[in-house]
Amino acid sequence: MRASRPAVHPVEALPPAAAQAQEQAQAQDHGEGEGVAHPRGVRMKDPPGAPGTPAGLGLRLTQAFFAAAALAVMASTNDFPSVSAFSYLVAAAILQCLWSISLAFVDIYALLVKRSLRNARAVCIFTIGDGITGTLTLGAACASAGITVLIGNDLNICAENHCASFETATAMAFISWFALAPSCILNFWSMASR
Amino acid sequence: MRASRPAVHPVEALPPAAAQAQEQAQAQDHGEGEGVAHPRGVRMKDPPGAPGTPAGLGLRLTQAFFAAAALAVMASTNDFPSVSAFSYLVAAAILQCLWSISLAFVDIYALLVKRSLRNARAVCIFTIGDGITGTLTLGAACASAGITVLIGNDLNICAENHCASFETATAMAFISWFALAPSCILNFWSMASR
Repeated sequence: MRASRPAVHPVEALPPAAAQAQEQAQAQDHGEGEGVAHPRGVRMKDPPGAPGTPAGLGLRLTQAFFAAAALAVMASTNDFPSVSAFSYLVAAAILQCLWSISLAFVDIYALLVKRSLRNARAVCIFTIGDGITGTLTLGAACASAGITVLIGNDLNICAENHCASFETATAMAFISWFALAPSCILNFWSMASR
Repeated sequence: MRASRPAVHPVEALPPAAAQAQEQAQAQDHGEGEGVAHPRGVRMKDPPGAPGTPAGLGLRLTQAFFAAAALAVMASTNDFPSVSAFSYLVAAAILQCLWSISLAFVDIYALLVKRSLRNARAVCIFTIGDGITGTLTLGAACASAGITVLIGNDLNICAENHCASFETATAMAFISWFALAPSCILNFWSMASR
C-alpha cells in the first residue's frame, strides 16, 4: 500500500512564469483522455458524450427512443394495469422519455448556437435528474424483469399472458438505462472535476 | 462555521525544509473535515464517509448488516427458491455482504495504522466495485419488490405465502442500497476530483 503523500524533494523556488509553465506541463500529464493543455482558468473541451456534444445528443435520443419503445410495447398489451410493476414501468418510461427529449432539445440548442453546456448549475441539475430517472428506470426494468421471469420460467403461464411483449418492453427499458448511465457518469465526472 | 484556512499572519520566509516540517505539523494538528491548511500539491483530508474514515467504516458496516439481514430473512422462508427474483436477491445480498465486510476490514486497517486510502488505484477499484454491487443490489431489491407487490396487492394471495418475510427482506435490501449510495458517490467524487 502506498503512502498518501507523494515523496517531496526540496527544490529551489522557481520564478512565477517558470512555475506556471511547469504546472501546465503537469496538468498536461494528468489530463483526462487525450490530455489537453489548457491555461489556468480556461475550461477544458467537453469529452464526447457530455451535454452539448453530438455524442451526448445521440445518447439522449437513444434513451428517449428506447424508453418510448418500452412504453409503446407495454401499453400495447391490454392487461398491463393488472400488475403494479408493469404500470410502474409505463410511468418510469414516460418520465425517462420526457427527460431525455427535454435534454435532447437543450443539446440541439447548444449545438446550433455552438455554446458549451459546462455551466456549474446546469451540470448539477443534469446530474441529479439523470440519477433520479436512471434509478427509477432501472428499478422499473428490474421489477418487470422479475415478474416476467416469474410468469415465464417459474410458473410457466406464458400461454395466457403476453410474455413476448413484457419481455420486449423490459429489454427496451434496460437498453434505455444503459444509454442513460454514460450520460449520468459523464455529468457527475464533469461536476466533480471542476 | 469556521473558515477553511486559519488566519495567517505575515512571518519571515522559512527555509524549505523548515517550512515543510511546519506544514506537516499543521496538517497533523487539524482533524479531518474541519478545514485543514494544506500546502499546494498535498492532497486534502478525506471528507467524512470516504474510505478510511470512521463514517466510511460506519457506512460499510451498515451495508453489511442490512445485506446480511435481507439474506437471513429471505433464507428463513422455505419457498424462496421457487421464485427466481428471490434467489437473485439472496445471491446479491451475499455479494453485497462480502464486499462491504471486505471494505470494512480495509477501513479498520486504515484507521488502525492511521493511513489515508486516497490511492488512485484503490479508489478506482472501490468505485467500480461499489457501482457493480450497488446496481445488483438495487436490481434485486426492485425485482423482489415487484413480486412482493404482485403477490400482496395484485393477486391477494398473501395467506398462502410468506409476505411479511418477503417484504422485510426487500426493505432490508433497499436500506443496504441506500447506505451504499453515499459510499459510491463519495468514491466517484474523489476519483474525479483529483
